[in-house]
Amino acid sequence: MKISILGSYQTQFGELWDQGLRELLKEAAFGAIKDAGIKPSQVEAIFVANKAGGGFSNKRHISSLASQMFNHFPPSLRIEAACASGGIALVTAEQAILSGRYKTVLVVGVEKMTDVSSQETTKILTSAADVIHEYGSTFPALYALLAKAHISKYGTTREQLSAVSVKNHRHALDNPQAQFHKKLTIDQVSNSQLVADPLRLLDCSPITDGAAAVVLTSKKSLGKPKILGYGQGQDTLDLASRSSLTELKATQTAAKFAYKEAGVKASQIQVAELHDCFTIAELLATEDLGFVAHGKSGNFALEGKTTYGGKIVINPSGGLKACGHPVGATGVKQLVYISKLIKKDQFKIGLTHNVGGSGATAVVHIVGK
Amino acid sequence: MKISILGSYQTQFGELWDQGLRELLKEAAFGAIKDAGIKPSQVEAIFVANKAGGGFSNKRHISSLASQMFNHFPPSLRIEAACASGGIALVTAEQAILSGRYKTVLVVGVEKMTDVSSQETTKILTSAADVIHEYGSTFPALYALLAKAHISKYGTTREQLSAVSVKNHRHALDNPQAQFHKKLTIDQVSNSQLVADPLRLLDCSPITDGAAAVVLTSKKSLGKPKILGYGQGQDTLDLASRSSLTELKATQTAAKFAYKEAGVKASQIQVAELHDCFTIAELLATEDLGFVAHGKSGNFALEGKTTYGGKIVINPSGGLKACGHPVGATGVKQLVYISKLIKKDQFKIGLTHNVGGSGATAVVHIVGK
Repeated sequence: MKISILGSYQTQFGELWDQGLRELLKEAAFGAIKDAGIKPSQVEAIFVANKAGGGFSNKRHISSLASQMFNHFPPSLRIEAACASGGIALVTAEQAILSGRYKTVLVVGVEKMTDVSSQETTKILTSAADVIHEYGSTFPALYALLAKAHISKYGTTREQLSAVSVKNHRHALDNPQAQFHKKLTIDQVSNSQLVADPLRLLDCSPITDGAAAVVLTSKKSLGKPKILGYGQGQDTLDLASRSSLTELKATQTAAKFAYKEAGVKASQIQVAELHDCFTIAELLATEDLGFVAHGKSGNFALEGKTTYGGKIVINPSGGLKACGHPVGATGVKQLVYISKLIKKDQFKIGLTHNVGGSGATAVVHIVGK
Repeated sequence: MKISILGSYQTQFGELWDQGLRELLKEAAFGAIKDAGIKPSQVEAIFVANKAGGGFSNKRHISSLASQMFNHFPPSLRIEAACASGGIALVTAEQAILSGRYKTVLVVGVEKMTDVSSQETTKILTSAADVIHEYGSTFPALYALLAKAHISKYGTTREQLSAVSVKNHRHALDNPQAQFHKKLTIDQVSNSQLVADPLRLLDCSPITDGAAAVVLTSKKSLGKPKILGYGQGQDTLDLASRSSLTELKATQTAAKFAYKEAGVKASQIQVAELHDCFTIAELLATEDLGFVAHGKSGNFALEGKTTYGGKIVINPSGGLKACGHPVGATGVKQLVYISKLIKKDQFKIGLTHNVGGSGATAVVHIVGK
């Protein structure tokens, strides 16, 4: 892999009443181009990650809006793989570069979620689950099943789940683009409103507007962060068809490929943005990526091993929980955040982990210099 | 380009009341694999083209359903670029192969359009136009503007438009998978119900359920059709921002790249599947692809130059008009049909042309042996 991250940008995440899909797309795209120090005319192709522009914004064919922002109309397309759209768009862009067709491309993830009712939002998000075999189950309900299984098998506690949320909210205090800047206590999380037992409101990532973009290039880029390896994994869409509910096999598959390609071991990862759509999801990922043994992630989080001064810094941006989760943008935002830390030499090797559905799709990127 | 089309398959196109999105996806995927003579386990990745599964079928993350059809869960993603989703998915798959990541991949285009009301269908389809600057304009209305401009500049006649529909319906009589097997006369088309002046009902492609799939490979495949070149072009999403309404520049750009890569001239193309969502669209494409000079496509069609015994056979499948237009599947179906004719040595060099929106995205493939 010889792909560098030449520039990156994240818009503010949050309830952005004065910005629509187009404004967010444009801000992120040109923010990343400016950060990359290139001219817009040097963008050879655009890969747009978006989960549900048709549902949220009555807008399909978003890719053509992206092309139209440039005088030279670069070729574009939209990639969708539920909440893994961002990570999979990166994979697609990387393959396009490696094909030799393009040298420098733009990847933009965007989602404008707050323009529809919460009932409609739930319907749209749930369409990424198995709407036939899991009909009526929302994602909080599906992840609650995963949490129940983990609690049952390993004795994972309420306090351990809460520790994930507390830590991610604390990290977000240092991220100006994060949706929430609100310090939480374990008790506040543990006593927040029940959503789907055992998951409570403060276990859940929010509904978010936002966009993120990166400029990727195969050109020599001294001092720029590089993609060392990536992997993609799949599993059944419905939970009922899986042999285990205490792990996400798609994450394990994606990690195996990514570690192999990068020539890196889990123990070498110093910082990671993981897909914590719910607190249990961060715990599962911490185990599935090999940072700690199965069943040990709860204590690992509670004991402060996943923050500064611990073993590995997980979700320094605040994660999906506190930085926010504009679903199509998330996978790109993860790379934006990790690559900035690598660029500033705060860490040597980082990882991003993006999940679609309740683990049917997963993608892992490993970043270094 | 060294990519062969190892196998292909098209489901029946039409109003398929007893088949849902999953059944269509599965039939096309395994039909193409069987035709390719490979084992399902040899599929290394899956590229799903779909325009609006969220809107039509309350189903996003369709790619994960595709992976789940295989015991080894190959990586998958969904590509969307309005009605060019199929053609762009082929481009994405080709780049993935050329990157060296995969040798043999599956591309499946699918759309299940008949499960929602016609009002809802119109809303979903229109979301691929510029919903802000063209609000209230349906695609028949937008293509009617293009037709008006062509008529005004070149004197294109009602009879010439009708000739396209008559020819495509006649071609469809030989395609068992076509939605319509109904011979039409010029008068029937010219006197059919007015939809958006000057376009009438029989100028318009229908609402269709269907799927199509191809297996692409970089492995040596003696006697199999090959992709000689491809190109993608873009233009403004809204018609009002264009300098000309009598041509689609995206088609011209896509063709230029494709001809150059293939080392082929327009005059060498013997057979083509063009994006005739409306009769005027086939006329525009006939000119933009260089088969005839601008303003001459109407007579070219009326004089029988675009059918067997003429200069070039356009839309032998029946085209979008008579074979049907399951929007996400169309671009893949075009390659299925052309590659079968090339395989059987009925023609030496063929072309496919797939358009998104009213010409904001276009993709051209050139196929030979």
